[in-house]
Amino acid sequence: MRRTPIRLLGTQTIVAVAVARRCNAASAIWSCAMRLAAIPTPALVVGRDAFDHNVATMAVRWPGRTLRPHVKAFKSTSLAQELAAAGHDAFCAATVRELEGLARAGLGADLLLANEVLDPERLRRLAALSDKHGARVTVAVDSTETINAAATAGIEEVLIDVDVGLPRCGCAPDEAPRLAEQARSRGMEVRGVMGYEGHVVGLESREQREAGVNASMDILTSVHREVGGDVVSGGGTGTWDLNHWVTELQAGSFTLMDTAYERLGLPFRLALAVLGTVISVSAKGWAVVDVGVKALGMDHGNPTILGASVWFCSDEHTTFAPLDGVTTPPVGSRVLVWPAHIDPTIALHEKMFVVNDLPQDTFSLPDELEITDIWDIDLRNW
Amino acid sequence: MRRTPIRLLGTQTIVAVAVARRCNAASAIWSCAMRLAAIPTPALVVGRDAFDHNVATMAVRWPGRTLRPHVKAFKSTSLAQELAAAGHDAFCAATVRELEGLARAGLGADLLLANEVLDPERLRRLAALSDKHGARVTVAVDSTETINAAATAGIEEVLIDVDVGLPRCGCAPDEAPRLAEQARSRGMEVRGVMGYEGHVVGLESREQREAGVNASMDILTSVHREVGGDVVSGGGTGTWDLNHWVTELQAGSFTLMDTAYERLGLPFRLALAVLGTVISVSAKGWAVVDVGVKALGMDHGNPTILGASVWFCSDEHTTFAPLDGVTTPPVGSRVLVWPAHIDPTIALHEKMFVVNDLPQDTFSLPDELEITDIWDIDLRNW
Repeated sequence: MRRTPIRLLGTQTIVAVAVARRCNAASAIWSCAMRLAAIPTPALVVGRDAFDHNVATMAVRWPGRTLRPHVKAFKSTSLAQELAAAGHDAFCAATVRELEGLARAGLGADLLLANEVLDPERLRRLAALSDKHGARVTVAVDSTETINAAATAGIEEVLIDVDVGLPRCGCAPDEAPRLAEQARSRGMEVRGVMGYEGHVVGLESREQREAGVNASMDILTSVHREVGGDVVSGGGTGTWDLNHWVTELQAGSFTLMDTAYERLGLPFRLALAVLGTVISVSAKGWAVVDVGVKALGMDHGNPTILGASVWFCSDEHTTFAPLDGVTTPPVGSRVLVWPAHIDPTIALHEKMFVVNDLPQDTFSLPDELEITDIWDIDLRNW
Repeated sequence: MRRTPIRLLGTQTIVAVAVARRCNAASAIWSCAMRLAAIPTPALVVGRDAFDHNVATMAVRWPGRTLRPHVKAFKSTSLAQELAAAGHDAFCAATVRELEGLARAGLGADLLLANEVLDPERLRRLAALSDKHGARVTVAVDSTETINAAATAGIEEVLIDVDVGLPRCGCAPDEAPRLAEQARSRGMEVRGVMGYEGHVVGLESREQREAGVNASMDILTSVHREVGGDVVSGGGTGTWDLNHWVTELQAGSFTLMDTAYERLGLPFRLALAVLGTVISVSAKGWAVVDVGVKALGMDHGNPTILGASVWFCSDEHTTFAPLDGVTTPPVGSRVLVWPAHIDPTIALHEKMFVVNDLPQDTFSLPDELEITDIWDIDLRNW
């Protein structure tokens, strides 16, 4: 029997309808009435309670469109639908494919490509989302080349992307007014500025994060005064309560969280793990779960298994040893593996299986956990 | 105009026909007559000359079925077809989905699941490949549980997987005879033993690799004498010329190579890179290419850009700085990013674009390079 997930948000009716529709549309093999124990591994699982808590917590500080959820973190229109139902219906993304999927799913109210793209064909497709799906599309630009590419493709609105200290994209601050003028001279509307303090969001010291965001936003607000427009876009999960300058926060990881962000002591809870099956146990003290580097983003390091020490990950395996006093799980048992970085982890999977709650105190998973929803990860690749 | 790739192998006619078929069947968007400059990035590119060299070099020591290519490395039936055409038509894999794809593609002559799987449904599908596609299927087992799962699913042949020093799967050596007896008592044929010296294959010192493989194969050959059967399966790219005991080498990475294996001084050449576009250049000295951790397996560390220093990778970007004396590539130029680990890199992409040769001395890519083949990466996920 399928349990109705507990909702923390004030949109029960709308969300419940959306969930029912997706569950009915789900694959014939996997259905929402199934227990998690029947799902083949490795598989992504989402704890509904933690996800709802995260969304509700963020919405207190950043309600409605003051939050511009970054879809790169979760690459799923199903999850984006949940955010839209909670009032956050303006999105940003890192790839054109992510935005195309959102527009097709009816989530095109206000889409921002928060990244530089030069590909003429992709930019043309992006510009066409306006006519095809009634989407509003804005593109980040940081150079004459990206402005020309956007204008040639028929893009109508841009943000000037500014280097605020992260050595990545973004023009030099003193270049921004000239680029804004260029964009306007090509007939495009300049909605404002964007600047991502990505060198700051992951710092474990709150004081350092605060000092970093202050310095970055000094630059961005100063540039904004010269460029004009209504939008100052930036920030992320790690600076969600420290960035007081942006008009919209580009956060995505807060929805599901990971062990790297967890170290920052944020009020968001871990809501995503990779479910694995123990396929081998050695009398020498280790066990092997079928979750490896093809199921885990590894750029933030090894994953975590609660109650165990992770030794290493290989293509399809993680070798771990239970801590003293913890019983080794038998062959065939289910184990949760918590990724260090959700964005590249999710990009490796096809679906997320939602359950009401994920245990946070043990590596074992109760076999009777029921799936309440299935979210397709439909925005992968490029 | 499409150039015919130069072939180093003695199977010119067969391979040429296969290539022509795939090119005709390729996507309407991307065709083999295109120049690489027209391919959207990030995209995997394969250097045909280096690939052919690698296959020919390996075949001298491990001809025909003495090589059992490990499909987990490249996840492509197109690439597997090339190996089959070169005489290597027995494959091993890490997932059931990899083997199903091979069988469907007519490559089921001798398939080994070189991994432990307990999922009853997947094992049943694996057993059914025999009736459905005439495939021969062998499965690795290392416990009573995996033997029971295989027997129940109707698997007919197994290898006993032995722990030869890598703390991962594999039974204790002294358990192997008992497990072989169990498997036979369940009506399954025991073809022999398997043992992977994965703790050795990546050691940079050849002496250490040699000592390690000797110790591991001492264990495996000793177990083999007790278990019986024709097959002693193991080894990999890093021990290809040091492992003198196995009857079949389970190597896969040698086909395309990566920068981690390159450090070992093997005679195989780098044949796979991720093609990117420079999307932003800073006057402060760095440039940004649109190849990030969603396009790169990161468990072996940062990728390499020839003539440049890689600073860091984020979701969709790599920031790099050209070395002294190297000109910064302009916005819009194409750059090759060489991954540190091909297996998880390939698992992130949908296609490999084959060109005759990839430049190994510069990060820039001649725009006029023509695509001679497109290999689908059709064996992804689980």
